[in-house]
Amino acid sequence: MPRYKLTIEYDGTPFVGWQRQADALSVQEAIETAIERFSGEAVRTQTAGRTDAGVHARGQVAHFDLSREWDPFRISEALNYHLRPNPIAILACEKVGGDFEARFSAIARHYQYRILNRRARPAIEEGKVWHVAVQLDADAMHEATKVLLGRHDFTTFRSAQCQANSPLRTLDRLEVFREGDAVIIEASARSFLHHQVRSMTGSLKLVGEGKWSSDDLGAALEAKDRARCGPMAPASGLYLMGVDYP
Amino acid sequence: MPRYKLTIEYDGTPFVGWQRQADALSVQEAIETAIERFSGEAVRTQTAGRTDAGVHARGQVAHFDLSREWDPFRISEALNYHLRPNPIAILACEKVGGDFEARFSAIARHYQYRILNRRARPAIEEGKVWHVAVQLDADAMHEATKVLLGRHDFTTFRSAQCQANSPLRTLDRLEVFREGDAVIIEASARSFLHHQVRSMTGSLKLVGEGKWSSDDLGAALEAKDRARCGPMAPASGLYLMGVDYP
Repeated sequence: MPRYKLTIEYDGTPFVGWQRQADALSVQEAIETAIERFSGEAVRTQTAGRTDAGVHARGQVAHFDLSREWDPFRISEALNYHLRPNPIAILACEKVGGDFEARFSAIARHYQYRILNRRARPAIEEGKVWHVAVQLDADAMHEATKVLLGRHDFTTFRSAQCQANSPLRTLDRLEVFREGDAVIIEASARSFLHHQVRSMTGSLKLVGEGKWSSDDLGAALEAKDRARCGPMAPASGLYLMGVDYP
Repeated sequence: MPRYKLTIEYDGTPFVGWQRQADALSVQEAIETAIERFSGEAVRTQTAGRTDAGVHARGQVAHFDLSREWDPFRISEALNYHLRPNPIAILACEKVGGDFEARFSAIARHYQYRILNRRARPAIEEGKVWHVAVQLDADAMHEATKVLLGRHDFTTFRSAQCQANSPLRTLDRLEVFREGDAVIIEASARSFLHHQVRSMTGSLKLVGEGKWSSDDLGAALEAKDRARCGPMAPASGLYLMGVDYP
């Protein structure tokens, strides 16, 4: 059966997250319904990362199989037609080999977290950022990222519901920079634990406020204790930017 | 009477534009209602630029007078409280002299126009960009801007309803550049005619598609004929970015 890879953008606001749920609309259900509408086939998609409710994507990746061959460009056009009016857009569709797995073939995942750091609440970016009114020191936050880089037990920065077998992850990139009123955090790793980026962001915000030092962040990491994590950042500021494959 | 200057951000989508209208909510009415709620005074605001329905602002400026003195920071806090849930945010409030006029004292206005230039419609920026699916040549568009720079009769790029006495304007800056999937147009002038930025953008899009050359754009300008303008760009991509004062 031919296998297709989708690159997907969505506004996570109206969805219960990527994963199908019985009682409310997920991104997965919207896409699988659109696939069935154009192809007549009921399929299950597999995704690179199951984003939570309210989390956005600019480069989510999923794959699915169809029994017959389709022109990939026609698939993306048909899906974008049937996905209306959901805020989901198929940016690309490619035919891939039967050994391609959106989740297991991924070698890197890239996230961005956007903080709107000013007194006034967002008028244009409502639901697309985390509004933090107190002035943050982005340079101090960036400096503190160094204690999180590399291979660590990230139990402190992991949801209590995380289903991963191991809390060990290798954080390859973590940067904080200011862009006007925005403080932007970018993180890359082969894979992340559940809530890892939002947990790290919530703790980095404490550094930006001057409540925590870099050493406090390091001590929280070394404690391997979820109770030592700063208050978790909300879903609205998080974007899955892209997924790399060999 | 003390005079106050507001710097304002808004998402233009739900409004009939800046200016008050009898039958639907304007940005002006929302702000004047909020002023009355905190101060008890029914005031009329004056603005630097009356944006049309659907046009956004990141740095609109308006002024108003109150009979008593208030701390400017308290005014911005009170307005942001009373403006909820409208997508309007007061970014700053300052006390200014009685000779300050948001409209007449302005020495420069800055607009940005955002085109999302890709096949798939916007999922995250719906209502915040103009979606143009055909590939645009941003370099050719930028090259063509040169024929519009400087002092000209902009009758071709002016709404038939424009109430300005003269069609002469001096365009100080007009640039086009690409940022990923976005093609961004930035324009600065002491003042603009009604629909001028959207009209220039619509014609520059024809250059980006290869339908018009720079010379065609120049000929349209020199014709001083509204019928020679390209189809006007929609409101959704336009942002009033800021207004300068001496």
